[in-house]
Amino acid sequence: MKNVEHIGIAVKELAAAEKLFSTLFNAAPYKRETVESEHVSTSFFQINQTKIELLEATNEESAIAKFIEKKGEGFHHIAFEVGDIHSEMQRLQDEGFTLLNAEPKIGADNKLVCFLHPKGTSGILVELCQEIR
Amino acid sequence: MKNVEHIGIAVKELAAAEKLFSTLFNAAPYKRETVESEHVSTSFFQINQTKIELLEATNEESAIAKFIEKKGEGFHHIAFEVGDIHSEMQRLQDEGFTLLNAEPKIGADNKLVCFLHPKGTSGILVELCQEIR
Repeated sequence: MKNVEHIGIAVKELAAAEKLFSTLFNAAPYKRETVESEHVSTSFFQINQTKIELLEATNEESAIAKFIEKKGEGFHHIAFEVGDIHSEMQRLQDEGFTLLNAEPKIGADNKLVCFLHPKGTSGILVELCQEIR
Repeated sequence: MKNVEHIGIAVKELAAAEKLFSTLFNAAPYKRETVESEHVSTSFFQINQTKIELLEATNEESAIAKFIEKKGEGFHHIAFEVGDIHSEMQRLQDEGFTLLNAEPKIGADNKLVCFLHPKGTSGILVELCQEIR
């Protein structure tokens, strides 16, 4: 794992959360992006080498909608930048971790991503990500 | 906020979690530390400029014990490094955030720390921290 690429936070209302986190960080988000395939609207803040990603569900099918219904707003996932996502996925599968997607999929922010099942990682949802060149 | 200094993860058994995260990160923790005043034993991993702090309760009074009883293992807090903790605490209080301690207190890893109430920050527990020189 090369870097904590970002922390994902599930929020009910993106506009309100953007305002709140802008005040907290004393800085504005640098971009918004909707990921249709994941049913989320996102907003990104940059803090040194790590991003904070706010995630709002765009419909009820969204994993974020289900997460908030079950647990409320809060920490959703932590994403680690890896050098080679295919080899890291293979290594972690061999070590007994459960991959939530068998092949890397396209996530927000021009990344290939793979999630690990939180039951195998002390309850935290871990994302591996690699920049698409 | 200068950096995501660390991410705190509440775990039931530190030794088991250390083993799990060592496998996940393909790297060993670089230190262990018990903070008597907070009733926690901790273990730290370094990923680039951010640390992952595993937290185990040392007794039932610990906030970590209460957290796990209520929510189970998982993300506990995110700590941001600040240049001047006193001025950041004042700024955030003036902006309407609720400080959980009115004066900086001594935390793990040689830091002055202050926590913000998660009800004001979309459900995430935010720590401000500044290295003690």
